[in-house]
Amino acid sequence: MSLSLLAVGTVAFDSIETPFGSAERILGGSATYIALAARLLGVPVRLCAVVGRDFPDAHVDELASRGVDLEGLVRDPDGDTFFWAGRYHFDLNNRDTLATHLNVLATFKPVLPEAYLDSAIVCLGNLDPVIQSEVLDQVKGPDGKGPALVVCDTMNYWIGSAPEALAETLKRVDVLIVNDAEARELSGEPNLVRAARVIRAMGPQTLVIKKGEHGALLFCGDTARPTVFMAPAYPLEDIHDPTGAGDTFMGGFAGHLARIAEGDPAAASDPEAMKQAVVVGSALASFVVEAFGPDRLLEMDVSDLDERLSDFHRLSAIPAGLVAL
Amino acid sequence: MSLSLLAVGTVAFDSIETPFGSAERILGGSATYIALAARLLGVPVRLCAVVGRDFPDAHVDELASRGVDLEGLVRDPDGDTFFWAGRYHFDLNNRDTLATHLNVLATFKPVLPEAYLDSAIVCLGNLDPVIQSEVLDQVKGPDGKGPALVVCDTMNYWIGSAPEALAETLKRVDVLIVNDAEARELSGEPNLVRAARVIRAMGPQTLVIKKGEHGALLFCGDTARPTVFMAPAYPLEDIHDPTGAGDTFMGGFAGHLARIAEGDPAAASDPEAMKQAVVVGSALASFVVEAFGPDRLLEMDVSDLDERLSDFHRLSAIPAGLVAL
Repeated sequence: MSLSLLAVGTVAFDSIETPFGSAERILGGSATYIALAARLLGVPVRLCAVVGRDFPDAHVDELASRGVDLEGLVRDPDGDTFFWAGRYHFDLNNRDTLATHLNVLATFKPVLPEAYLDSAIVCLGNLDPVIQSEVLDQVKGPDGKGPALVVCDTMNYWIGSAPEALAETLKRVDVLIVNDAEARELSGEPNLVRAARVIRAMGPQTLVIKKGEHGALLFCGDTARPTVFMAPAYPLEDIHDPTGAGDTFMGGFAGHLARIAEGDPAAASDPEAMKQAVVVGSALASFVVEAFGPDRLLEMDVSDLDERLSDFHRLSAIPAGLVAL
Repeated sequence: MSLSLLAVGTVAFDSIETPFGSAERILGGSATYIALAARLLGVPVRLCAVVGRDFPDAHVDELASRGVDLEGLVRDPDGDTFFWAGRYHFDLNNRDTLATHLNVLATFKPVLPEAYLDSAIVCLGNLDPVIQSEVLDQVKGPDGKGPALVVCDTMNYWIGSAPEALAETLKRVDVLIVNDAEARELSGEPNLVRAARVIRAMGPQTLVIKKGEHGALLFCGDTARPTVFMAPAYPLEDIHDPTGAGDTFMGGFAGHLARIAEGDPAAASDPEAMKQAVVVGSALASFVVEAFGPDRLLEMDVSDLDERLSDFHRLSAIPAGLVAL
């Protein structure tokens, strides 16, 4: 039986400006990227999000054609779809938010369809931590004992404005995926090794710290002697649009664990599986930034991914034999 | 026959403030760190630098006791030793220079002792590129055809103030080691993959870009299809003093290649050897930042290094077998 992955987050319109071009009101949102990334790995994906009256059927069809289960995509006839506009700086590491129109997201209360309740893996995209908890309340999991794995994203806004609610959610999270600035803010520790210790004590057994062009750090396993892993970022010459890279990472990370868990549920929580999941997430993220919005995810296939995974091996493998003295 | 490594640079007094403490007028300088790092690898090291009348014999003895050949350490009786004072910010990634007194360095013209002329590997610490070239003019190398390998450092100051002289030096350099800001400034390219292509076209066949806590990037081999390697940085909880990390990296990098070249000269220019050298340099640099000045290099031994090299393998090895789809 295939393990199902539930992607909870936003489905949105994004308007994006980068030094390489711009795009107006294209398909975006965390749930979109999470779902498309996990679908590329062949994992059954259920999507839970809300769109408004202005959301075109063509986008719905695009997601459906990739095999995303859209029973949980609610269309709110009383409002417009969540809209975000941003401008990236020349180095692509920083961006200004030009507009955030919550629209139908402002009143969204996710109610999972009956068929979603047995989801094994839950990906909580960046949302109000109260909403994230309410989703977890509903998931019964494959055996009625709750989800097998909860993967969660958050952002500075919630760390600053809703620390108590976030703390409650984090107690129920297995894997937290944040960027380095968020890890520092959440922990109050500038040093990332110390930050990881503080954050893991808040609940998540596994922590992934994304560092953009500098790769990603994984902390997992035994808390006293954690497994630390440093995944490289793929050295790209042309980064056209970083939007969605973090969500794509999450979809690839969780999707890889879903595939492993299908064969051997215990293996999916092994540090070695977590390391692989970070690399799969990084590899998928390295594709999505090559074009605007989710275009690259929509056109690529697993053979592209396979090739890039080989590149990641080549990129980071330390030649053995001569290093030791 | 052992291949000799020539370390050209500064021997200095450093006054350092970090959030973890401070140290006054301690032993420093690029040649000091390069020499001590390479000596830890057992490589014969010759040092070329100048000190002033105020330089204590105790420091000379410290270097001599580690087996550094000091015939090329000139003592200028008419002035004081080069002095640098700096203060590191809380995140240790940025520092303010509080004082730079060139003193005897201002008039230093290195003249290599006869016994140094057959040096195989030349490490040019950060100095005026004119001086760097004048050193290269003198080295005859083991077979009279010049040095087998020239490894060079530079900094923003020379990139901005002496671009022509630097360009001349770079034509004679095999491996350039700079940080990411320097690579961007030298190339005029914000993207590091593009920057590497521009810099390698200036002369250095191999380029290492140091990124501090984010590791190091290596570009080498074929120019059309370069070998790219990303070495992790060791995730340290306590960084006491970053001073000398870059010079220690260079000494470890060049020292490792010297060891490989001793057994097989052709192997030392192989991309696999370069990758290993980056990891050895990174490992040694991860020690030096654990204490003020070169203290850690002076007290550690090769078994400490061996252990940390194993950590680097664990830190970056992607588990095989399950990643490919």
